Amino acid sequence: MKKNIIVGQSGGPSVAINSSLAGVIKASGKFNIEKVYGMRNGINGLINDNIVDLTNYNNPKDLLNLMTTPAMVLGSCRIKLPEIDQDLNVYKNIEKIFKKYNIGYFFYIGGNDSMDTVKKLTSYFSSINYDVKIVGIPKTIDNDLVLTDHTPGYGSAAKYIAVTISELIRDTAIYNIKSVTIVEIMGRNSGWLTLAGGLPKFLGNDKPQIIALPEVAFDEDRFIEKINECLKVDDSVLAVVSEGIKDKNGNYVGSETKSGAIDTFGHAYLSGVGKHLEHLVTQKIGCKVRSIELNLMQRCASHMSSLADINSALEIGEKAVDAAINGHTGVTMGYKRISNSPYKYEIVANDVEFVANKEKFVPKDWTNLNNPECVKKILEYILPLIKGEVEISFDDNGLPCHFVI
Amino acid sequence: MKKNIIVGQSGGPSVAINSSLAGVIKASGKFNIEKVYGMRNGINGLINDNIVDLTNYNNPKDLLNLMTTPAMVLGSCRIKLPEIDQDLNVYKNIEKIFKKYNIGYFFYIGGNDSMDTVKKLTSYFSSINYDVKIVGIPKTIDNDLVLTDHTPGYGSAAKYIAVTISELIRDTAIYNIKSVTIVEIMGRNSGWLTLAGGLPKFLGNDKPQIIALPEVAFDEDRFIEKINECLKVDDSVLAVVSEGIKDKNGNYVGSETKSGAIDTFGHAYLSGVGKHLEHLVTQKIGCKVRSIELNLMQRCASHMSSLADINSALEIGEKAVDAAINGHTGVTMGYKRISNSPYKYEIVANDVEFVANKEKFVPKDWTNLNNPECVKKILEYILPLIKGEVEISFDDNGLPCHFVI
Repeated sequence: MKKNIIVGQSGGPSVAINSSLAGVIKASGKFNIEKVYGMRNGINGLINDNIVDLTNYNNPKDLLNLMTTPAMVLGSCRIKLPEIDQDLNVYKNIEKIFKKYNIGYFFYIGGNDSMDTVKKLTSYFSSINYDVKIVGIPKTIDNDLVLTDHTPGYGSAAKYIAVTISELIRDTAIYNIKSVTIVEIMGRNSGWLTLAGGLPKFLGNDKPQIIALPEVAFDEDRFIEKINECLKVDDSVLAVVSEGIKDKNGNYVGSETKSGAIDTFGHAYLSGVGKHLEHLVTQKIGCKVRSIELNLMQRCASHMSSLADINSALEIGEKAVDAAINGHTGVTMGYKRISNSPYKYEIVANDVEFVANKEKFVPKDWTNLNNPECVKKILEYILPLIKGEVEISFDDNGLPCHFVI
Repeated sequence: MKKNIIVGQSGGPSVAINSSLAGVIKASGKFNIEKVYGMRNGINGLINDNIVDLTNYNNPKDLLNLMTTPAMVLGSCRIKLPEIDQDLNVYKNIEKIFKKYNIGYFFYIGGNDSMDTVKKLTSYFSSINYDVKIVGIPKTIDNDLVLTDHTPGYGSAAKYIAVTISELIRDTAIYNIKSVTIVEIMGRNSGWLTLAGGLPKFLGNDKPQIIALPEVAFDEDRFIEKINECLKVDDSVLAVVSEGIKDKNGNYVGSETKSGAIDTFGHAYLSGVGKHLEHLVTQKIGCKVRSIELNLMQRCASHMSSLADINSALEIGEKAVDAAINGHTGVTMGYKRISNSPYKYEIVANDVEFVANKEKFVPKDWTNLNNPECVKKILEYILPLIKGEVEISFDDNGLPCHFVI
């Protein structure tokens, strides 16, 4: 008897995670898998037997709708499994569920923390010689996973950010009075999304004049100096700033004004650098100043997603099923870029050991943003990822149609 | 010799103001007007002879591009003309410019403050018997102009807000932990844009559970009580809140933390009602809470504009030229709704005396949002205004093509 699939979503949302889920559901048909189950709220659903049957969604209409729905239709979680020797019961419980639903293939769509779950489940089930293929499917708008050219979700977030910055360039330039606008962008410790905010400038616009990556030590005095230089030649200054910028000692900029709260993985909640810099500009320069957080919109604006991203997110979901059926386990899928122009990639399976709990940063030689060679590399990298627009469905009222389970 | 047109844009931006400008340029062709001039930065450009020739943009490609470019291609200003008897020189200066450019038709696209300029110029030029037709074209995302069914720009901002709230509903519902998300929406003292944030709920969704209009006295205790009630039946609570909500005494909620007030104990960077309420929820409930400002995006996101809005903004620009050519002066154009279903309107010219410096609020009998009759009225009003999506042009890089003068 052929075994069934179970799939879950974990970590922070993006607009491409449901597309990867659609890919898993779609590919199950190719291999005549009888049932595709979804776990509610990631690994929580697995532990608590909160399972939903997704098999009937394998039809073009539902899959398309799923592909263009933001966030996670299955819900998410932010929990880490215990070490196997610390709490064997959790694993025995999961084993029971696997048996109950005759699971032979487990897919987990998530970021670096979620790959830790893939890693631990692989260890457990291989230690008991239980035949289940365990495959991770990457996702994160932050683009900070290693061993993949990029992550699904990044291209769409990057496109939303670049489009929004393009629009803010228009909006902030209308008055002939001196003004500074600071846009705070997500990405934790990696500057990939902030680079996307710089795209209008890299493509020839004179703004944003300031692009602050977390990979480069941030100097508040230099920031104020640079704004003053810009204000001499232009009335409005636009700065895109990563939420994770740090000073030369490695302390988050404005950290003294942050809440100090940390999430369950021990990451500090980052928010507030924009407001911090806004107040700095008020104090040191005194001109009109505004800070803008792109906030959750950058990870859920499916109305402005990248066609390249949504399509390749579907594809990586499909390829994950291929890999599992072909016997891969303890792997996480990744994109391997073959060429920039024309843009070509293949989808590969990487050992999850080399991916879990690791972060990928913007390389040092990409951070000199005044160097045309550096800008060329950035453009070659990002532009294929934001290519194309997704036609989303709107209902008769003019609101987007979202898929809900 | 036929006289020329001059047109300007003033006040805060929207995504429809350039469409009205396109309407003026387009209609000039119909009447064989020789020159269409634009003033840079509104009335400032007129006073300082900072004038640009727009005549050659009267071609389908440029007009279409102009229609889908956010903010103001001519730039804006926020100045009020002095009273005529206080500073006659300003008016004499404008008269000189009118003569220099042989101006017979003056159009000013703006909000309630800008209509004050239309009013004063009309008074001056009629007092000296100078033959120039002076016509206001409304715009403001706030929708707070009187004597018009709605204002150009409102429908698009409303659509962006409603779509974004739809997406945030997905994003904020993924975890099974208690959380509150507060979205702060523009609109000054009128709740029209906040009503748009409520559209998903009015159309059958259970969120946003809380919709706070500035027309209804806001009670912080009741707000917390309502959140607690919602958290009993749902993990996530979404509240849309107008930036202009006031308590029962008419004081802006959180006003003590606005206006750049700084305290050094971690509350230094509170600003805006969203952050204020976020802090309140933290103190009183203690669950996960986040506030989001839709900020400038709600007025410049041309990638998510309403087709009905952009098209009718063009039309009102055209009709303004018709009105001027037909001898109207000292008027501001407005929409008069004829029927809801099918949605029909006509464009009329109202005496600017009755429009300038006045505000239109959400009517009292529309603010009981638990009443189905009230919700029906709101839907009948707003839905035709957000109807349809605008196909904007993207360049080969995947970024929007904007029109720049």
